[in-house]
Order: sequence, then C-alpha cells, then structure tokens
Amino acid sequence: MTTELKWRARAVIDGKAREWFPAQVPGNVQKDYGEAMGFGDHSYGMNAEKFRVTEDYAWDYEAEIPTEALRVSEGQKLFFITKGIDYKFEILVDDREIVAQEGMFTPVEIDLTGILGRGEDADGRPHFLQVHIEPHPKRTGAADDRTQADQCAKPPVCYGWDWHPRLLVSGIWNDTYLETRGTGYIRDCEPFWELTEDNSTARVWFAVDCVKDVEITLYDAQGQKIAAWKQQPGTEQVIEIKDPHLWWCNEQGEPYLYQWSAKSSDCEKSGTLGIQSSRLEMTEGSWLSQETFPKSRCDAPAQLVLNGRKVFAKGSNWVNPEIFTGTIRAEDYEPYVRLAKKAHMNIFRCWGGSGINKEAFYDTCDRLGIMLWVEFPLACNNYVGTPEYLKVLEQEARSIIRQLRRHPSVVLWCGGNELYNNWSLMTDQSLALRLLNRLTYEMDIRRPFIATSPLVGMGHGGYTFDDPNDGRDCYQVFQSAYQTAYTEFGVPGFADPEEIRKVIPPEDTFPIEKNPVWILHHGFEAWGENRWICPETLEKYAQKPMESLEETAKTAQWLQCEGYKGIFQEARRQAPHCAMAINWCYCEPWICPANNSLLSYGGKPKAAYYAVMDSLRPRLASARIPKFSWQPGEEFTAEVWLLNDSGKPVEADIRIRLVIGDETYDLGEWHAASDGANTKGPTVKCVLPRSDARRMTLQLAADKGFLDSSYTVCLYKE
Amino acid sequence: MTTELKWRARAVIDGKAREWFPAQVPGNVQKDYGEAMGFGDHSYGMNAEKFRVTEDYAWDYEAEIPTEALRVSEGQKLFFITKGIDYKFEILVDDREIVAQEGMFTPVEIDLTGILGRGEDADGRPHFLQVHIEPHPKRTGAADDRTQADQCAKPPVCYGWDWHPRLLVSGIWNDTYLETRGTGYIRDCEPFWELTEDNSTARVWFAVDCVKDVEITLYDAQGQKIAAWKQQPGTEQVIEIKDPHLWWCNEQGEPYLYQWSAKSSDCEKSGTLGIQSSRLEMTEGSWLSQETFPKSRCDAPAQLVLNGRKVFAKGSNWVNPEIFTGTIRAEDYEPYVRLAKKAHMNIFRCWGGSGINKEAFYDTCDRLGIMLWVEFPLACNNYVGTPEYLKVLEQEARSIIRQLRRHPSVVLWCGGNELYNNWSLMTDQSLALRLLNRLTYEMDIRRPFIATSPLVGMGHGGYTFDDPNDGRDCYQVFQSAYQTAYTEFGVPGFADPEEIRKVIPPEDTFPIEKNPVWILHHGFEAWGENRWICPETLEKYAQKPMESLEETAKTAQWLQCEGYKGIFQEARRQAPHCAMAINWCYCEPWICPANNSLLSYGGKPKAAYYAVMDSLRPRLASARIPKFSWQPGEEFTAEVWLLNDSGKPVEADIRIRLVIGDETYDLGEWHAASDGANTKGPTVKCVLPRSDARRMTLQLAADKGFLDSSYTVCLYKE
Repeated sequence: MTTELKWRARAVIDGKAREWFPAQVPGNVQKDYGEAMGFGDHSYGMNAEKFRVTEDYAWDYEAEIPTEALRVSEGQKLFFITKGIDYKFEILVDDREIVAQEGMFTPVEIDLTGILGRGEDADGRPHFLQVHIEPHPKRTGAADDRTQADQCAKPPVCYGWDWHPRLLVSGIWNDTYLETRGTGYIRDCEPFWELTEDNSTARVWFAVDCVKDVEITLYDAQGQKIAAWKQQPGTEQVIEIKDPHLWWCNEQGEPYLYQWSAKSSDCEKSGTLGIQSSRLEMTEGSWLSQETFPKSRCDAPAQLVLNGRKVFAKGSNWVNPEIFTGTIRAEDYEPYVRLAKKAHMNIFRCWGGSGINKEAFYDTCDRLGIMLWVEFPLACNNYVGTPEYLKVLEQEARSIIRQLRRHPSVVLWCGGNELYNNWSLMTDQSLALRLLNRLTYEMDIRRPFIATSPLVGMGHGGYTFDDPNDGRDCYQVFQSAYQTAYTEFGVPGFADPEEIRKVIPPEDTFPIEKNPVWILHHGFEAWGENRWICPETLEKYAQKPMESLEETAKTAQWLQCEGYKGIFQEARRQAPHCAMAINWCYCEPWICPANNSLLSYGGKPKAAYYAVMDSLRPRLASARIPKFSWQPGEEFTAEVWLLNDSGKPVEADIRIRLVIGDETYDLGEWHAASDGANTKGPTVKCVLPRSDARRMTLQLAADKGFLDSSYTVCLYKE
Repeated sequence: MTTELKWRARAVIDGKAREWFPAQVPGNVQKDYGEAMGFGDHSYGMNAEKFRVTEDYAWDYEAEIPTEALRVSEGQKLFFITKGIDYKFEILVDDREIVAQEGMFTPVEIDLTGILGRGEDADGRPHFLQVHIEPHPKRTGAADDRTQADQCAKPPVCYGWDWHPRLLVSGIWNDTYLETRGTGYIRDCEPFWELTEDNSTARVWFAVDCVKDVEITLYDAQGQKIAAWKQQPGTEQVIEIKDPHLWWCNEQGEPYLYQWSAKSSDCEKSGTLGIQSSRLEMTEGSWLSQETFPKSRCDAPAQLVLNGRKVFAKGSNWVNPEIFTGTIRAEDYEPYVRLAKKAHMNIFRCWGGSGINKEAFYDTCDRLGIMLWVEFPLACNNYVGTPEYLKVLEQEARSIIRQLRRHPSVVLWCGGNELYNNWSLMTDQSLALRLLNRLTYEMDIRRPFIATSPLVGMGHGGYTFDDPNDGRDCYQVFQSAYQTAYTEFGVPGFADPEEIRKVIPPEDTFPIEKNPVWILHHGFEAWGENRWICPETLEKYAQKPMESLEETAKTAQWLQCEGYKGIFQEARRQAPHCAMAINWCYCEPWICPANNSLLSYGGKPKAAYYAVMDSLRPRLASARIPKFSWQPGEEFTAEVWLLNDSGKPVEADIRIRLVIGDETYDLGEWHAASDGANTKGPTVKCVLPRSDARRMTLQLAADKGFLDSSYTVCLYKE
C-alpha cells in the first residue's frame, strides 16, 4: 500500500530560508518557485532568464508524515521511497539527517518505522520528512556553461545547449511516496534471459529480493500460464522456453512481451519479459583496410543485430521533451513513441546530455517496439577520472544498469556523446569510460557497449542545409560521405508560426532580428552567428527576401523536408556499408522557433516529420540527385533506386517525371525488382529548360503507389 | 629452504606411455624428447620438421620427492611450487590427481605435507610427484596454423609465424621446486605506490601475505634505511616519501630502485621498488578533426608520459629469444637488454604472440631502465568470447597483472597484437578485450590500457624495403605517412653468412633457391612469395645479380641499415605528432637467414643494429632524402634536420657533402641550433653528375662529431 505525501518547498538563499510555497512532487522546485514568484511561462519572451538567479539557491522540501500511515500492524513497516532526487541532497526526518547522497538516478528507501516507531507516539506531535537540496553542482573555475557539470553525474543539458536554454533544474524529480510493507514484501523481481544463437531456446530466470518464498508464474502475452514455480530466498530457478516468442523492433516483428507475477504471503508484483539478443557487428565493407603500409585499425562495428538479424537502424535522437523533466507524467511518453513507430522508426538514441528518463519511457518502448541506444549522462565534456567523480559515476551507472537491463527495448549501452572529439577531450584512456565499459561488462554482458558516438567510421553532423565550412549542400555532403553509421545529422526547420507566436512577443515576430529574444530562443548565436534561422540559406534557395514569418517558416520547412529526405534516403542507399540513420533530433524541450527536431514542443509533428516518415518506408522508390541547386541549360541527372529494408521482395514499374512550372518532362521508366534489399536503377538525364519556376519536382510514380516519391529542389533563375 | 627435483619425462602416444627420458626443468619436454630421439639441432636443415609428430602427444613428468625433504619440523610444511606449466595439465602425487589447470601463467602451490604427512611414512615406500601434460590445444576445425590457438591463452607464436617455425612446445617451463615453509612464511610482499601529479610525494605501501607480524624495512638504492615498521596480518601502512627518487627510463634519468626487506619470525624476503607514473596522452596535433561534416572521432592517444614528462618511445618489438622458451635462464636476458640500452632505446613492446617472459626479464628491465609495453597472449586471431575461453583468460590475466604490476618498467598494458584488423576480426565489442580492460582497471588503475595495436592513428608496417602494393621505397612510404605512432615497421636484412651456414646445409647455401630448407627458414613464402629474402629487391638496388652468399648478405644488410635509418629518423622528424618508433623486431628465436630483426639469434648484433643505434642518438644531424633511388642528371634534394629528444640544447655547424665515387660535392653548411627539440634546417640541392658509381653517400659532418650522420643511397647507372 502506498501513500502520497503533500509537499511544500522553500528557497534557501545565502543560508537564509525564505517563504514556503506549494511543491509538485515529482517535479522541479524551480518551476514551483517560478509559479510562486510569478515568473510567468518560462518559454515566453525572456522569462527563462528569470531563473538564472535561482542557480545557486539551496532548497528545502517538507511533508508531514500522516499519523495514520505510521499506524502499521505488527510485522509491517512504513518506508519512505524516492526513485530519484536531483541532484545532491540530504533526507531528514524531524530535522535529523538520515541519508545524504549525490546522484539523481539512485533510489533511496528509508524505514520510517525503524526511526519513528509504529505510530505509538507519546507526545502526539506530528512528524516531518524533509529533503534538503544543495545548489547545482558547478565545478570551480569552469566557464558559465556545460563544463560546470564535468565533475558530476547530472545530465549537462540544462546548463545550456544550442537548442536548450540555460535553465538549471533540480528537486524531487521522480516517484516519491510512502509504502507500507509486510515481512513478505518483494523488493524486486528482476527477469533475466539468455537466448541460444539460433533463437530456438530461451533460458529465463528471476532474481527475487524477498525474505520469504515466492510463487512465480509466467504467462504468454495472452495471459495463458506457461510455467509456475516456488522460489526460496537466495535461489533461482531456470525455465527453458522452446521456440520462444521474441521481442522484435518495429516492422521486424511483434514486440512480444511475456507477463509474470510474483507472489509471497503478503505481496504481489507483476511485470513483463521481452526475450531478445542484441549485438554490434562490423557493417559490410568496413573490414577493408588501406592497401599500402603503414596500416591502422579497421572501423568500429556499427551494424545492429537483433535476434541474429541485421537491422538497419532508422530513428532519431531522443532528448528531454520538457525543460522541467520532473513534471513529465508516465502517460506523456506514449504519443511521442507512437509517432516514431508511425514514421517507420525502430530506434531512439537516448543522447547522453539528457540523462535517463522515467521508467514509463522504457516500458512504452518495450511495448511499442522501439529499440533504445542508452547513453550514460556524459556529453561534450572532459569528465576527468578523479576518485570523487568515479565514485559517483559508479553508483549512478550501477543504478541505471540495474534499472534498465530488464527492458528488451534497450539494445546498446554507450558512454556518452562525442567524448572522443576535440570539443570534449576525452580519450580511450579516460577512466570514466573504462569504468562504464567495466560495469556494463560485469552487470549486463549480453548487451554491446560503445564508449561514445561517433566511433571510428561513424559520423556526426552536418546540422545545416549547407556545410558552413565549404558551402556544399547536404545532398553533396552525404553523397560524398562513406560512414558506417550516421548517428547525428540534421537540417533546421521552423516551427509553425502559431507555435512561434506562443513564445516570441508580437513586436519581435517579424522582421526577425538578432535581438535577445531570438537569441534566447536559439534563432541566432545558438551555434555560430546565424543558426538556427540561417537567414542567408533561406534567401539563397528562395531567391528572394523573406517577407513574413509565414514565408520564412514555409521556406525553412521546405528545406528541412527536402534535406531530411536527401540525407535519410542517402544513408539508406549506402546500406549495407552504412547501418544507421539517426537524425538530430526527434523532439524538443520547449518551443524552438527554429530547430533540427522533427516534432515541435508537445509532440506536434513538423512538416519534416512527414518527409522523414516518407523516407523511412520499408520500401520506396528513391532518387539520388547529385546536388540541390540547378540552372536552366544544365544537364540534370538523378540515379533511381528501389530501397527495401523489409526483407520482402517487390517489383514495380516506376515512371520518372520532372515537373517544372506547368510542364511535365518524362524522363523514362524503370522496371524495378528487389528481392528484399536495395536495388540500383538507371540514371535519368535531361537538359533543363528555361523557366520562371524557382523550384522543380522530380516525381517517381510507381504502379504500386505505396512506393511513390518526390523531391522538390531549387532551380535558379537565370 | 628450497629443494630442486630431478625429473624424467615420457611421451604418451595414443594413450600409451613410452620410455622415460631425462627432463630439464624448467624447460620444454619436446627438446628433451628430441634429444632422447636424436632429432639433432632443431635449427639445422629440416630438423624442425621432426617435431611435427609430437604435436598431439601427451606427456608425463615424474620426480621422486626426496624423503629428507618431507622430514620437516613441527609447524613446518613442505610445498611443491611451480611458477608455470605449459599448458593444460594435471599434477598428481603418487598417481592421485591433486590439481588440474589450464593456463601456463598461473603458478600452483601444493602442500605436500598435507597430503603425505611429515615424512613419517610407515611402509617406507618412496613418493612421487607427477605432472601430466595434455596435447597442445587445437581448436576443432581450425586450419593447421595459429588459429588453432584462438580459444586458449597459450601464446600463439609456436603454431607458426612468418619468422618462427611451427614448433609447438610445452612442459614445465618456469621455476619449479620444493620449499619448506614455517608458520611465518611470507607468501608475497607486494609493493604499491602512488605518485602525486607534481612528483613531490610518493605514497608507498606493501600488501603482505603472511599470517604473522612482519617487519618491513625500506632502503634507498645505496642501502640506507629510510623507514621501518611492523605490519600485522591484513593491515597496511602507508609511508610517505617526500621528493622521491623516480624510476626513469634510459636517457631520461636513473632507473632508481629502492630496496625493501620483509621479515617475520622465520622468513625473510627482499625486493626492489621503483616509483613512477605512466599515462598515454594525445600526441600534438592529433586532436585535429576534419573540417567538414560528418565528423568522426579523433585519433587515440599515443604519447607516453613518464613521471609527467612526455617521452618519445624509441625501441623495438621483443619476441622470444628461444623457441624452447622454457630453457631460458634468468641471466640470459641481460645481454639483450644491455644492447637495447646501448642503442639508445627506452622501450620494448612485448608482442602478444610471444606471451609473458620469465620474471628475470622484468627485473632486468627495471634495473636497466627499459620501459615495457606488455601485451596479453592474444595475437592475430579472433578470440571469440565463449564462457570457457573467458574463464581461462581471466585466470591467466589476473596472474599476469598480479605478477607484473610491481615492476616499474611496465608502463602500458595492451590486449594483444593487431586484433582490430581484418586478419584478426576482433572488434571493440569483443568480450575478451572488454574483460582485459576491466581487469587492468580493477587491478592496476594507475597504468594505461589499450585494447590492441594499432589503434586509430597508429600504424603497423611496412615490413619490406619497397611496399609490395605500390612499389614505393620505405623513404617515400614513411615520408608520406602521418601516424601518431609507428609501433611495427621493419626492413629485412640477412644474418652474417657464418650464422646462415650454421642452419642451411652447404649444398643449399648458394645459389639461394626456393626449396624446402629455405622455405622452412623463412627465406621464401614466409609472407607472400619471396619474403624475407626479396631477391628482386636486392638485384634492383645492387643493379646486378647476386654472385655469392656474402654478396647477397651484404646487399641485404646495406638496405636494412639504410631502410632502418630512413624510417627511424623520419618517425623522429614527425615528432611531436608522432610519439613512438618501435621497429619489428628486436631479436629472434632461432637463426633466421633473413629477417627484420636487429639481433641475430643469441643476441648477436646485425649491421642494422648499429644503424638503429646511430639513428636513436638523443641528438644527431639527420637528412630527409625524399627517395632512395636517383638518376644522374636528376636534381638531388635533402632536407637537413637536427634531431634532439634529449631536452638539452645543442648548437653546431653542419657541413653537407655528397660523395659519389671518388668525388665529394659540397652542398653547403648549416649553423644548427636546437633548444632541446627537433630543428628543421635548409633543403640542399645538386644536379647529380654522370658516374660509374652505383651508390652515393650523403654526409652530414658537424663540428661536434657526435652529431655526424651519413646515408648511402642508390644511384642508377644510366
């Protein structure tokens, strides 16, 4: 039996406690404080800046322990449970410190009856639970940015990123409650599984944390009993399942979940079990080494193999869908995951800057068949392996692995984001990454571990339509690249104007100027001078100045759609040497007027979401157009492909047409046949006519309409 | 007190035990068997082939336990100790199995008095120790080569390599004896140390394995007492040494060794302690990443930092100096290590194919200041992480780390040789390498660990004067390379004819023909068709056919000398981006007529040894000559450098001369000044005259003669 608590909180500024205000738990204390202080919607105008003053505050939470909760029967105990407090904190009972901890991913349990007795309180005074939260960790001497978080295990994103404002959050962020437990309480019942190489047999066992005998029952997905057995404390029984139903990712099969229950004399728990195996292999062609000496190593493996089957990883980088991450409710994840599934995605890379989500996220991905690449909370910093840091990292990593390894959706562990790059300065020798390699080996040897992304052979970027270094457009960039996996890439696009108007005050919406509001909202100076709006790119391809917010948004959305089509489809054309296409990024934590995300804040699809959905269809006609901009009189070419990662054959007649203004030019027909993999077709050509049109559309129209594709590229006015 | 045993051995063929023969312990049973069977010198003619029949034999060893050894006093015990038996074996006492083990690097101790009593044997019959050795491990289905060893922790080299005949050895290979131990016996006393970042303070402690109190005394190198303390079982005392003498490698300082003794009531042990710190950092310029997107990772760190000082690693790849590795005596190592020191080397890479040496090797390197890069016994195979293999590897790796981490000469752990290359097929995901990362992290976190060599940025090869793939000579190859570390490279040269005549029968010495004797001795088909003799290369640069063994050897030696000069000096010129020049290989296990080694069998320097010594002087004048072959009429160029890794300044006038036949051409003078690092000087030029000479020599003559260098390159006859 669980009991919710009613919390209040207060700021402690320079050692002085201020007024109490109501606190939402789970939540973030800064949000509650902002509401109490009338900061207004943090996403509007310059409001986010108001939170800067709170960065070095400490915070107190307090809740009264209901007297009736303490009145437990003989043999029962009342526990205080918290699944996570962000970040460095002490828990007190009646002002007496019981637990002090650094780290937001390690749960705490406190036996309150052990401290307060069973509610037989002589003086009848009320009892209080208190949580004291220390100011945000900031490494001494670090600049006012994410580097402040390079000696802690707090996800660095809230220290400011190019798409996330600096808005530091903390507080009781995860489920926190009182629980009455009898002597037979089942603290945990963790399913483990092993699958034979040929998938013919699964060995399943449960590690039960309970001092009494437990009756475990295993059911199939329909609730039919498969096996039941009694397990004594400290023992394990291995069940063999012949020809098990496997957990498959989206479009590769059903994300099959067995069910189980565990019952002791006075407790019952239940859960699911997905049986899978995952590994990373070398992609085809990446065992090649240079012909001449001296020779270096070959690329790192990047081919995901699920249940023995090579799966091209199609997906997106998951980031926090809220700035106030503590306020996310279990049910909030599902619409996001459903949209990924609908877009034919099969994977989220859970980027290290964002940290670990609430349990419901992993449950949802288990249920809907989205694979998860899970990163530990390290990103773009040099996490020097001091003994103090390694101690916290080990505690947090052990908690994370213990929590997540039971989820079949988790297919890959990763140390963190871009750590072997020169903006982070970590290396193969960094003790933090050697530690994570060790812990995943010890605690979850079944799953692959990579130290970071990118590894050798893999690529991150670009993030703009034109490469800022050499001006090539993203068609050209990716057609000349040859990576084993594209695990971050993106093209900025605008949110819909109605979204933008929610956060940019009317006087600033248009013309768009490099002023504090647009800068705070990542329109300018987010990364370099003019990103993410990139006005010069918009005018270059529109071939005219932007005359309204609507026109600006539409132009950016056009480029984002065509850019994402070009990159996702090119990555797929490079299969099987390339095995992953995972764009930056999927969602966003507040309304970003311009961003690489596919969903606007709140999970609202942008136009680009549909372009990506289009490009990730298991089977589609696809054109490799060598560049995005064309001139009348020039010879236009396009290589026609039939992309197919369904494993199923398809045959079709594909007609290739170029539409320029009102004219349609027939470029030929291809009878395409795929036996289940990609097939390369003819290269079509035509000399481009003079036209007033500024865009032209290449259409691939198949007799099987589900294969149709089209591309609208730029035609320069003479 | 220790007692040696007198052993005999016998082959067990198809389950049938054969005749006993005397066995040398430590040694290899195949050598004893060959002597008993009259196989003759294994290195002569085709004799090595005779050992092929023994590959699948099992072996018995037997020794009588001297009755007097068993007569120990009350409180004493008699132990059987073996430091290593190669490879899978059982130890029996009076035909009763006591221990069964797989793995040659894990010592075994057996309490004989616990089994046999204290020598009060009623029936007076003698007692016997027996060792049964199983046939060599050969993975089922593997080809008849090193891949047979890919599921065991036996070093694979004896399964056959391009410079090592297939000659499989096993047996009681390491120190093995009886020892009488009192109750206060000190099983181990292991020194540990930690050095502050600024080298100002060392913390030193000793882990003592003894059930009684132990008095530990620490002395300086001169034997002056520094500290003494009593340590109780299970406790440790940390001693702080202010401004400690550090252990330095050759030419960077003194390899300072403190001394210690540990005394209990009835036992005394002593040893040395070298205080150092080592790490791997990024070399200068290797944090660069590509300008355009997508971006992959930066190179792996390759700069050795000893005691906080960056040290350019100059050295060679150590391989077994004997085929019968068990016969190596402690004193055999010193001449080899002294020669390395004399050649200005500071490091050996102890290549994974060869396995772990006897303890005396590490002691000698500690004493003489040669750093060691130590590889676990994995090389050029795919060691698949089956539970069985991982179990043996873990046992063996733990023993190796425990034995070697006390040696200050050990500066780097490495998983093994060329494992991330396409001839090995291991990857970042290979469990064996993840395990070794974990064990070195757990047991020796102070030292760096790399999974294999080469890592990204590092290079292996070439191994011939001309690259077999594109024909460029080694000057051209290395001047166009840009690696962070050259950790294998070589040029073949001949042994002296008198050495060759020891192993090649007179009728085969000349002309050299591709016949079984020359093939067995790696003259042909060792690696490709004509290696290591490379007759086409010899004739190309000599510009004439070879007319005698002497001429062949001299020509090959000339190319080996000039090739090694060119590569070693080029690697040094590429510092600080390049931080290692470690050639393949230092020594050889039998007389190889043609090989890349610097020392012939037995530690006899080849001419190339002196060329390398010349090239590794801390300070020298050096010329970058863009190619090895020149034509009359062509413009010869050379870039002049002053190489200096001494850290000390030097200034000199260097005169550059080209000697062609009897003529000397003055190419100018350079006043060179180095403040302690490399300095690049002028490029000299001259149009080459007509001449009958087939070689010409560039001389760099300095007023400080210790800087002089010269290069004899090829001048083609018109």
